[in-house]
Amino acid sequence: MSIRELVEGKARAARAAATELALCPTRLKNEALLQMARGLEEKTPQLLEANRADLKRARTRGHPRAFLDRLTLTDARVEEMAQALRQIAALPDPVGKTLDTWRRPNGIEISRVRVPLGVVGFVYESRPNVTADAAGLCLKSGNAVVLRGGSEAIESNSKIAAVLAKSLEKVGAPADAIQFIENPDRAAVAALLDLPRHLDLIIPRGGEEFVRMVAERSRVPVLKHDKGLVHIFVDASADLGMAADLVDNAKTQRPGVCNAVETLLVHRDVAPAFLPAVAARLGAAGVELRGCPRTRALLPSARPARDEDWDTEYLDLILAVKVVDDLAEAIGHIRRHGSGLAEAIVTRDLRQARQFTREVDAAAVLVNASTRLVDGNQFGMGAEMGISTSRLHARGPVGLEELTTIKFVVQGDGQVRE
Amino acid sequence: MSIRELVEGKARAARAAATELALCPTRLKNEALLQMARGLEEKTPQLLEANRADLKRARTRGHPRAFLDRLTLTDARVEEMAQALRQIAALPDPVGKTLDTWRRPNGIEISRVRVPLGVVGFVYESRPNVTADAAGLCLKSGNAVVLRGGSEAIESNSKIAAVLAKSLEKVGAPADAIQFIENPDRAAVAALLDLPRHLDLIIPRGGEEFVRMVAERSRVPVLKHDKGLVHIFVDASADLGMAADLVDNAKTQRPGVCNAVETLLVHRDVAPAFLPAVAARLGAAGVELRGCPRTRALLPSARPARDEDWDTEYLDLILAVKVVDDLAEAIGHIRRHGSGLAEAIVTRDLRQARQFTREVDAAAVLVNASTRLVDGNQFGMGAEMGISTSRLHARGPVGLEELTTIKFVVQGDGQVRE
Repeated sequence: MSIRELVEGKARAARAAATELALCPTRLKNEALLQMARGLEEKTPQLLEANRADLKRARTRGHPRAFLDRLTLTDARVEEMAQALRQIAALPDPVGKTLDTWRRPNGIEISRVRVPLGVVGFVYESRPNVTADAAGLCLKSGNAVVLRGGSEAIESNSKIAAVLAKSLEKVGAPADAIQFIENPDRAAVAALLDLPRHLDLIIPRGGEEFVRMVAERSRVPVLKHDKGLVHIFVDASADLGMAADLVDNAKTQRPGVCNAVETLLVHRDVAPAFLPAVAARLGAAGVELRGCPRTRALLPSARPARDEDWDTEYLDLILAVKVVDDLAEAIGHIRRHGSGLAEAIVTRDLRQARQFTREVDAAAVLVNASTRLVDGNQFGMGAEMGISTSRLHARGPVGLEELTTIKFVVQGDGQVRE
Repeated sequence: MSIRELVEGKARAARAAATELALCPTRLKNEALLQMARGLEEKTPQLLEANRADLKRARTRGHPRAFLDRLTLTDARVEEMAQALRQIAALPDPVGKTLDTWRRPNGIEISRVRVPLGVVGFVYESRPNVTADAAGLCLKSGNAVVLRGGSEAIESNSKIAAVLAKSLEKVGAPADAIQFIENPDRAAVAALLDLPRHLDLIIPRGGEEFVRMVAERSRVPVLKHDKGLVHIFVDASADLGMAADLVDNAKTQRPGVCNAVETLLVHRDVAPAFLPAVAARLGAAGVELRGCPRTRALLPSARPARDEDWDTEYLDLILAVKVVDDLAEAIGHIRRHGSGLAEAIVTRDLRQARQFTREVDAAAVLVNASTRLVDGNQFGMGAEMGISTSRLHARGPVGLEELTTIKFVVQGDGQVRE
């Protein structure tokens, strides 16, 4: 069988299962999620064994230690995956929810009702736990999913997916609703992107290059989860203690993720007071600073920032720093260099806050809060597939509701068009 | 200048205007819409002159009379375009609307706020009035638009677009927000589809082939407005008088549009009573019937339906007719052949109605109402760009709200991620 035939076969099976799953009662979907959690717990030894094979191969390929750590499964991490599935079971079912109903002058009554999207292709380069999260979110929202994880975690992901699909079967839910492509060949991804009749949506999650490749090639609609080039602007009126807390948290709490800050913009009036203080604090946390000339006049130890620094998503303990004349310059800089994921202002001035939230165009705009809060769980939306940087369909955290579409239901008594 | 450079120049200008337009107050946008209406009225003679050039060319190309009629502008039709713009001015501005606000345990307050999509590419093969409708809807929703109408109406469309852009200038709104590509070359469409950095959305509106071509080639996300293969199922419990009214309206009120019915499915128990009655009525209206064998046993004068009839969008006074054993067969037929635009059941049985609305997957599912009612105006959503058959972002009528995306606005007092 060719790769294309293999992938198409899985997508077809997913489509058939999706039709069935769309009509599954919430109770059955929740039973399935709880069984998926139990299944992972029961099969922990087999999962760890599969993971050891991935780790062994990764070590021979000389991957760095941080990479190996993220790839590693442990008893505790399997338990976390199971708990995440139980949390998804506890979330409300978005399917069948009536968003609004209105009556027209001719007497017809129109409702907008949430229904599943259909079949979701999820193409990711992440830790093995993402396999269970994505399968759980798709199942709860009534979608079948075709999973294609990174080749480094292929044994772990494949085993996890097999346990999850088996769990569906056990409770009488359509097992074909969770498909996994084991073939490590890149051609399998290309084949998936070329199936607009079988898939309704592709969600790519991974590095910027990878996501761009998927978005450019896909004939299936794509919800992008790509770059986070995130700014914090410290206004002249900012509480400088708060500003230092927010910058520190946004840079160091977890530097390798998309909502970590990459560029700090500081109003010139507070730069002399703020920059030395925040630099000392960030320096103690091991953060390297790269500054504009005005920054370096205040912080001579900072490396000079080059043009490309303003466009670089470091995903590391590095921060670019620029002194700006005013809010307008900050907004202009963000417009040119921001990736539209999350942007923050620290200010005590209501007018500046209002102008920033109105004029800055991003999935999330924050006033006096850390950009690390831009996250489905932190927003109270439950688990997420990722954070969409697309403008269409879903922008920001993609949770259960974002995995649905709507249907208009019209009730009449024989009304016609005049 | 190459076609590519020309199109890219217009898209760039639209992007710059979009940034400005996104922040325009509602009052200015409404002033612009009213000025656009006045502008069309004042320039009626010039519009009719441009239209005569299109008509002359169309006649030499031997287009049928119905085509020429649709292409023709008259004083009354220009006045209708102006009135449509005034109606758009009267609709509420979707931009800046807060959809919901909630507070998290840590005290941050999160709002979802509507913002414009950005730059919309509208590629259409329709009557000249669509140019004004589309420009008006995009303007009101804060989006710049790059218009590319069919080559047959190019003089009329170009003149309309010029009058509209001039009107923006007059009231101090960004005139570049309405761009029109006069180049009749197909390469101009191809160039537009290849500008993912400059455009946020492509809306194609036209024949099935045209829309498929756009969707397959586009590197910009596409909201499809394509085929309407619409069914009405007459259940055993139906009020047969109502059923005949609905089928008649859905087939004959305006046969050339996407929400007109193309296939009639009739429960076998009522076929002997219903089919002769409805056939007489449709026959009087000039409708040709193409029936399955069981239909033809009851209506010997009907032509035999071939396999391809079940997949044909006639857009004409032709109706395919099939007798089915039960609701399940009807739903199965719709699943295989429907285009997911609108599907209707005529029934008095609550259980059948519930099963139909739950199990049939379409943008609109109707009970005891004509499929011709599936329309933005009929639904009370105001004017529409068309009816989306995509599942992502917007499904069904695309009005002002569907031309927006959202932004999360987070207000805090120094909250960080723990």
